[in-house]
Amino acid sequence: MEIVESPRAAQQLVEEWRCANETIGFAPTMGALHDGHLSLLEKARRENTKTVASIFVNPLQFGADEDLEKYPRPRQRDIELLEENGCDLLFAPTPNEMYPNGKALARVEVAELGNLWEGGARPGHFNGVATVVAKLFNIVRAHCAYFGEKDFQQLQIIRQMARDLDFETQIIPCPTLRENDGLAMSSRNAYLSKAERRAAASLNRALGAGVLLAQNGERESFVLEREMNDVLDGAPLVETDYLAVVEATTLEPLPRLDGRAARVLLAARIGATRLIDNVGLH
Amino acid sequence: MEIVESPRAAQQLVEEWRCANETIGFAPTMGALHDGHLSLLEKARRENTKTVASIFVNPLQFGADEDLEKYPRPRQRDIELLEENGCDLLFAPTPNEMYPNGKALARVEVAELGNLWEGGARPGHFNGVATVVAKLFNIVRAHCAYFGEKDFQQLQIIRQMARDLDFETQIIPCPTLRENDGLAMSSRNAYLSKAERRAAASLNRALGAGVLLAQNGERESFVLEREMNDVLDGAPLVETDYLAVVEATTLEPLPRLDGRAARVLLAARIGATRLIDNVGLH
Repeated sequence: MEIVESPRAAQQLVEEWRCANETIGFAPTMGALHDGHLSLLEKARRENTKTVASIFVNPLQFGADEDLEKYPRPRQRDIELLEENGCDLLFAPTPNEMYPNGKALARVEVAELGNLWEGGARPGHFNGVATVVAKLFNIVRAHCAYFGEKDFQQLQIIRQMARDLDFETQIIPCPTLRENDGLAMSSRNAYLSKAERRAAASLNRALGAGVLLAQNGERESFVLEREMNDVLDGAPLVETDYLAVVEATTLEPLPRLDGRAARVLLAARIGATRLIDNVGLH
Repeated sequence: MEIVESPRAAQQLVEEWRCANETIGFAPTMGALHDGHLSLLEKARRENTKTVASIFVNPLQFGADEDLEKYPRPRQRDIELLEENGCDLLFAPTPNEMYPNGKALARVEVAELGNLWEGGARPGHFNGVATVVAKLFNIVRAHCAYFGEKDFQQLQIIRQMARDLDFETQIIPCPTLRENDGLAMSSRNAYLSKAERRAAASLNRALGAGVLLAQNGERESFVLEREMNDVLDGAPLVETDYLAVVEATTLEPLPRLDGRAARVLLAARIGATRLIDNVGLH
C-alpha cells in the first residue's frame, strides 16, 4: 500500500491510474477504523480495480466544544488494517496539507439539508463535511465513493453535493454494521464506560420497536415516535436529542407513512458521548 | 469544433483528451463574445494542445431585478467566432442541463471576498459565480482556465476557490482589452446609447488619472480616490457606485500605497447600465 500525505501527489497517482483504465473505489474516513469502515473498503475492492482510503480528522467539521482533540488516532493500527484489507493507496494528509493557511475561505454548503437534525445540534458541521469531501473528491478522483448509512444525513448531503456540483464520483451507500447487541459501530463508541456501553444498545432497540410497529401496519409517525421514545425513556443514562420519522431524501418530517421512502433519525447523549443511529421504514 | 450540451458528454471527451496526454485550456464565458473573450481563447490555444470554451448565461448569478432575460445571446455569431479562433470544443449547456431541478442546493461560497464591492451591490452574485465555476471545472477538467482581469474580484474569488477546494485547474489571469477610447470591453456595453457610450470612456480616464498620480509619487489612497472621483463627477450621465484603492488579494481597502500589490476597483451606473473596471497600481 502506498501512503501519501501530499494532495498533489495523490492527485497525480490517481490520474495515472485512471488513464491506465483502472477504476477507483474510494472510502474517505477519519481513521480509528472498525469493521464498518472495512466493509466500505471491501465493497470498494469488489467493485473496482484500485482501492483508495483516506484518513483525515477534519477540524472544519468539529465545533469549538467538540471532541477534535480527543478523537482517537491509532495511526499504526489503521495502516495495518488497511494493508490487510487490500487497500492500494492511503491518502493521509496533515491539517496543514489540507488547510495551508489554517482555514478555507471557500466553503461548500448544502442548503436546507445541512441545517436540519445534526446540523441543528452541530452548527457548521455539514459545511465542514461538504467542504472536505469536495476537496477529497478533487484530490482522489474516484469512480465510486463509499459512505456508511450510519451517518445517513451526511450520506444524503454528499449525494446532493456530488449531483449539484457535477462531481464525476458516484456515491455508494453501504449498510450500517452493528455490534452483537445491535449498537451501530462508531469510532466514538470507544468513549463509553461499561455501563454507558450497555445502555447504548437501547438506541437500536428503540429503532427496532419502530420498525416492528410499522411492519404491523402503524402509519402515524407520532405513534411510531412515541413507541421508540418509550424505549429510550426506559433506558438508563440515555438523553434523547432528537428522534423523528422523516422523508428519506429531503429529511423533512413525515407525519404519516405514505409509501415514500422513510427513515427514522435518532441522536442521543449517553454521558458525555453523543451517538446517532437511523433505520429505514418500508 | 465539437459542440456539446450534455455535462456528461463533455466530461467524457475531456477525460479522453487528458488520457491522450493533451493539455486542456479552458475559457468559460457567458457568450456575446468580444475581442476580450477571444484574447482568452488565443492565450489558451497558445499554451495548450486543446482549447475549450463554454457559453452559459448562469441564472444563479443574476439578481431578481437584473438583466438575465435581456442579456445578449448571439449564439450563431459566437459559434462562428469560436470556430474561426481555433476552439476545439464548445460546451453550451441549457439551464436545465446545469440545474436539472431548477436549482442547486449545494453552493460554493467564498467568505469575505464574496461580500465585498460587487458582492455588496449584487447579493448572492459571487455564490452563483463560484458555484457555476465549480460545476464547470468538474465538467471541463482543464489544466488551465483563463479569466479576464476586467472582472478582477471574480478572478480573485475563483483563484481562492480553486486553491481552497483543490481543483487541479490553474487559474490564468488575462489583461483587460479596451476599445479605442479606453472603455473596457464588456458584453454589457451593447446596452449603452450613443451618449452613454461616450460618457463611459470616463471610467478608464478616471483610473488613468489615479495611475498617473501614483506614478508621480502620491501614496495616500484618499488623495488618489479624490482625483479619480473628480474625473467621474465631471462626466455626464455617470453615477459612481464605488471607487476604492484596495489590497489586490484580500480586496480590503488600503489606506496608503505601501508596496503591496494594490488595485483600484470601480463600479458605476450609466443610465440603466452598470459597468465595472479596475486597474493595478504599482
